[in-house]
Amino acid sequence: MLTPVILSGGAGTRLWPVSREAHPKPFMQLADGQSLLQKTLRRVAVLPRVQRVLTLTNREYFFRTRDEYARIKEARHLSFDYVLEPVGRNTAPAIAMAALRLQALEGPEAVMLVLPADHLINDQARFARAVDLAAEQAREGRLVTFGIRPSYPETGFGYIETSEDLVLAGVEDAASSNTRSASCTVRRFVEKPDFMTATAYLESGRHLWNSGMFCFTAGAYLEALQLHAPAVHEGAVACWEASALEQQPLELNPACFASIPDISVDYAVMEQATDVAVVPGDFGWSDIGSWSAVSELTEADGDGNRVDCETVLVDASNCFIRGNDRLVAAVGVENLVIVDTPDALLVANRDRTQDVKKVVEQLKLLDHEAYRLHRTVHRPWGTYTVLEESGAFKIKRIVVKPGASLSLQMHHHRSEHWVVVSGMARVINGEREILVRKNESTYIPYGTAHRLSNPGVIDLVMIEVQSGEYLGEDDIVRFDDQYGRA
Amino acid sequence: MLTPVILSGGAGTRLWPVSREAHPKPFMQLADGQSLLQKTLRRVAVLPRVQRVLTLTNREYFFRTRDEYARIKEARHLSFDYVLEPVGRNTAPAIAMAALRLQALEGPEAVMLVLPADHLINDQARFARAVDLAAEQAREGRLVTFGIRPSYPETGFGYIETSEDLVLAGVEDAASSNTRSASCTVRRFVEKPDFMTATAYLESGRHLWNSGMFCFTAGAYLEALQLHAPAVHEGAVACWEASALEQQPLELNPACFASIPDISVDYAVMEQATDVAVVPGDFGWSDIGSWSAVSELTEADGDGNRVDCETVLVDASNCFIRGNDRLVAAVGVENLVIVDTPDALLVANRDRTQDVKKVVEQLKLLDHEAYRLHRTVHRPWGTYTVLEESGAFKIKRIVVKPGASLSLQMHHHRSEHWVVVSGMARVINGEREILVRKNESTYIPYGTAHRLSNPGVIDLVMIEVQSGEYLGEDDIVRFDDQYGRA
Repeated sequence: MLTPVILSGGAGTRLWPVSREAHPKPFMQLADGQSLLQKTLRRVAVLPRVQRVLTLTNREYFFRTRDEYARIKEARHLSFDYVLEPVGRNTAPAIAMAALRLQALEGPEAVMLVLPADHLINDQARFARAVDLAAEQAREGRLVTFGIRPSYPETGFGYIETSEDLVLAGVEDAASSNTRSASCTVRRFVEKPDFMTATAYLESGRHLWNSGMFCFTAGAYLEALQLHAPAVHEGAVACWEASALEQQPLELNPACFASIPDISVDYAVMEQATDVAVVPGDFGWSDIGSWSAVSELTEADGDGNRVDCETVLVDASNCFIRGNDRLVAAVGVENLVIVDTPDALLVANRDRTQDVKKVVEQLKLLDHEAYRLHRTVHRPWGTYTVLEESGAFKIKRIVVKPGASLSLQMHHHRSEHWVVVSGMARVINGEREILVRKNESTYIPYGTAHRLSNPGVIDLVMIEVQSGEYLGEDDIVRFDDQYGRA
Repeated sequence: MLTPVILSGGAGTRLWPVSREAHPKPFMQLADGQSLLQKTLRRVAVLPRVQRVLTLTNREYFFRTRDEYARIKEARHLSFDYVLEPVGRNTAPAIAMAALRLQALEGPEAVMLVLPADHLINDQARFARAVDLAAEQAREGRLVTFGIRPSYPETGFGYIETSEDLVLAGVEDAASSNTRSASCTVRRFVEKPDFMTATAYLESGRHLWNSGMFCFTAGAYLEALQLHAPAVHEGAVACWEASALEQQPLELNPACFASIPDISVDYAVMEQATDVAVVPGDFGWSDIGSWSAVSELTEADGDGNRVDCETVLVDASNCFIRGNDRLVAAVGVENLVIVDTPDALLVANRDRTQDVKKVVEQLKLLDHEAYRLHRTVHRPWGTYTVLEESGAFKIKRIVVKPGASLSLQMHHHRSEHWVVVSGMARVINGEREILVRKNESTYIPYGTAHRLSNPGVIDLVMIEVQSGEYLGEDDIVRFDDQYGRA
């Protein structure tokens, strides 16, 4: 048995404007329409001996995560277990909570395969083989990390230095079938190097990229944590005991969790432990760390342009253009990244995509909406998209999932006109309850308690025209909510 | 008496995506909210001895032109006269029709000041002085052109070579008050030069930019046309006689007008005539021929960036960014022009803005909507903006001008939900006529004759949700229309 633990948090500020606080990197869709999170689930769902997937995320992302998982048909045989973090506390505490959960479910021998939700792996067969080898080592009580064979002198990753020469030891790629040995021992973890050092690492034959993926038993991790980071261990155990364990999703006690030190698993455990194994692999791994990395996923045309949307190019070369439903024209430009979203546009030098995070830092300082939200906002019941907003009115497209229901609510300052354009709505409007069919409309006066739900089996799509003296999202009184928001 | 003749046609393909076929360059708004057309009207409205303005445009632009003019308070004392061209036939025929019209109204001695609608002139006082001098020459029967003193070796303009050395003759800038003489004689018109030639012209002291602005009497122009381009003259006179002259706006006979040779006033008349005077001027003229020229109108910040919208800039320099309501972020880029509109985006090298026209050529070949229309479409009664469109529904914001009325119409395939968000609507819906107030709605079933009008004195703003099996603009049967479209 092997239990994948998916860590789904990380903002991914380098991938703005697609990645936002409320729509972080795991939810970013690639050209095939699947998100990185969905690809991560699929990757583990097709591994042998997997029956349960444990996901660490937060309340904000929970419903969305569940919906995304539900669309992966390879994962239909799995059971899902969620641990919700009230705040971000880095990987060591997160993995500790996962280990405690798994230990409670399956005992200390339970083998965990820890994966960030926002990486990409191309070669599933080699990945599966590497996981096999790692699980084997983990069952012997070792802490196992996955090391990626460097293909160029990357300065943005940490490196793992092995004790043996990988080539001499015949383990340069554990995932290929003709290796003599499965893994080797970690001598030390090293920080992000400068370019000269990275070049030396590339040539050394003893250095691997630190992928942030791990494999160990719950018991081995907790034991190592207790030994090398006792404060984290103690905090995690206290938080575990203070949380309402019988609920699913398991929501961690906010105060207890917040008091655990914020530290990564590398610092807290892996760099301290003595018996750490590394499984070297070459399975097409990418951490999708920048638009430059994303651009590699789209095939280049003869001029080196990689284009995901409708474009007109005149003397453009080596550009990556990712769009929306708008036309993008480029004239006499080269080496640009152009990323277009409904409310924000990025134009960047392709060699400077790491600095996109500086845009996000500025937006955060300004408390700008484009830091947090997309024009389409996900809610537990579905989505809403602001189509237009002016002083006196606001127009939204509202999509309600089959069987879902908004809260029973009331607004003090706005009336709402609802026109159903697809599906069927059940509407509580004051004392009345009615069905509103496609191409029918209804009107909710201000001060009237109302509730919208979708009794059908296809999405309900509705256009809402709000009118009133104040149209902020905070003009809402919730009387009842099936997602715990009342 | 002096009658400005405003030629309002030209597509302005170099200013895409702001300029479109249905929204050509004269309608382009500058940062102060005024369009080039409005600025042109204002420029002539404040000249002395002007009582009437004659505008040559086409049916498509007529209502919009009238609306734009109505917002220029300096022009309230003027009477407006329109000649509508059924097709574009270049400047010689257009000016011929203007001359025939003016001759009919005021006799052959009527002095015409011919101005393109899409130029910019900064120094009104110097412009007025130059016009005075030109009108003086025109009254003596000469054909007068305005020459702009070159400030750099522009290769995109034609040049006028004068007979006298401008400096020696003391006429290098007729608009300044301390010149001895008012104008000089044109030796010849010269085509767009190469860079070396343009540099020589700049230093010659005898060359001026050909601005495309002219002054002459109606009689002198028609006489010169008859002499130098008899086919144009004959065609223009025939078209004049075949048109319904008593109507305003005066619509030219389509077949007759189309048969006039397509030729510019420069080729047909000015380059052939012997007694052509040029009034040299330095009144801050620009033909706003490219985004590079437009960018000069916005002040640069310390990094040379010129920005008209909300931006976040990280190491960006010498960029021009003109936006809409979206946020634009630029990272590590220089010398770019970024022009953002609701449905199309342009990213161009600032030194290649002339090639924007190639984008438009491609769009025209593709018969792409973004060649013709903006998301906001102007109609005689106001505007509509498509906010969202999907297979099953379409959402529009409709703005109806005070007193305006859409046609009495019917759709076979779509029903319409109307929600009034500002102003008051009068609605004919089948047999009923009702008033719909702000925050009220009504429903027009398919197959029902209906009419929307604005009985009030402020704009009516309405959200329309269309629903049906076919939502094309061509599903419309017009029973009656106050703009002649039924």
